[in-house]
Amino acid sequence: MYSINIIGSGNMACFIANAFNTANIKICTIYSRNKEQGKLLAASINSTFVENINSIYKDADITFLAISDDAIESISKQTKTNKMLVHCSGILPLDILKKHNSYGVFYPLQTITKNDLPNAQDVPICIEGNNNTSIEILTLLANNISKHVHNINSEQRQYYHLAAVFANNFSNHLFALANGILLKQNISFDLLKPLIAETAKKAIAQTPILNQTGPAKRQDISTINKHLQLLNDDEYTKQVYKVLTQSIINLHNIK
Amino acid sequence: MYSINIIGSGNMACFIANAFNTANIKICTIYSRNKEQGKLLAASINSTFVENINSIYKDADITFLAISDDAIESISKQTKTNKMLVHCSGILPLDILKKHNSYGVFYPLQTITKNDLPNAQDVPICIEGNNNTSIEILTLLANNISKHVHNINSEQRQYYHLAAVFANNFSNHLFALANGILLKQNISFDLLKPLIAETAKKAIAQTPILNQTGPAKRQDISTINKHLQLLNDDEYTKQVYKVLTQSIINLHNIK
Repeated sequence: MYSINIIGSGNMACFIANAFNTANIKICTIYSRNKEQGKLLAASINSTFVENINSIYKDADITFLAISDDAIESISKQTKTNKMLVHCSGILPLDILKKHNSYGVFYPLQTITKNDLPNAQDVPICIEGNNNTSIEILTLLANNISKHVHNINSEQRQYYHLAAVFANNFSNHLFALANGILLKQNISFDLLKPLIAETAKKAIAQTPILNQTGPAKRQDISTINKHLQLLNDDEYTKQVYKVLTQSIINLHNIK
Repeated sequence: MYSINIIGSGNMACFIANAFNTANIKICTIYSRNKEQGKLLAASINSTFVENINSIYKDADITFLAISDDAIESISKQTKTNKMLVHCSGILPLDILKKHNSYGVFYPLQTITKNDLPNAQDVPICIEGNNNTSIEILTLLANNISKHVHNINSEQRQYYHLAAVFANNFSNHLFALANGILLKQNISFDLLKPLIAETAKKAIAQTPILNQTGPAKRQDISTINKHLQLLNDDEYTKQVYKVLTQSIINLHNIK
């Protein structure tokens, strides 16, 4: 059975720790610059928190760098392990770890918050390794926690990261703008929730472009103008409305 | 028990016909300019298709104008009924029907396609009537098909319609753009589906602004610039990325 270390104590570290702990993979040591959070995480899964990065268990099969993108390069240089080192970034290339002998990437394609962790079995895990042995170890390990493990190279992973920004960050922002529009009128966001659920359900069931409806798709200028009038006191939201309306018109005219 | 007529044979007409038929409300007659579709709809729920709008059953309690917004005014003038006439538009005011004695609005706040009808019980129905009697009749009738019937005036309904464009039309378009990004790289959209499901789940469980994550929220300029580079061959999508990134930065800086 494999064993691992985790460096980090944020959302990604908590996801990895809980997923592997549930799968009975031994988490030898946890290190984090945030000692308080690191100790809490270690205690929650009966692991050992180490105060110094040099004290991590060097014979653990994989050491995960579950830290922010801008810390990965410098922390990777401080990390001494006899086995494999992997980072969890969607956007950074595999080769950022190339000074190590054995290295890889383990990128869960999901929005992760530690207080509401997703079920790891349903989370697609994008993996990459510096050679066949690394890929094999990472695949075997990832298969313990997820039913959806995929070999994705650094270039492809960048595009998944970008697409995820559209699918999650931007769509969530649109839900926030919709909520803001209703808040200003003192009317309830709850009425919109079944629509949000159905929108996602349909995007999953069928190619989203085929589900497109609404005034932009129909080029219904009268309704578009009424909507723009309603947004007259909010130039920023109006700008978003205009650009997305134009983008829908472009996409559906090209096709 | 109430009885109804339906004018129209598109997505909205099919939704209304099926919902009321399931609730054992009698659908006396159906009229549609599209005879073929109208006949199919009438046959599917054992109702009667009439070829002339003057042949609708004039004593049905409510006649639904389930037709496109731009047809409502003219068709309403041709519709003779002894009882109540209602339209189903999100954006048109109640008063567009004011030449009738008894009139109202019945607006289901959901994305509706006839081949995949939502469960009516879960669809919020926004109703409005020209007087208390109209409101009462419409409420009683709507309660037969949905657990979520709300009194919403014309102004509020416009804002719900606008918010629905953000929550459904625009977010679906973002899913389509995400899919387009992956298609260009010949990589699978399936990996993004759990993320879409989780994004909607979180927006429903908690105020969306609190769920915001990503490079724009963090003002992570390095990642934003990498994403913009990846979009260098697609000016339209790049413009959407820029505007939404700026909108997230604005919203989270104002708060």
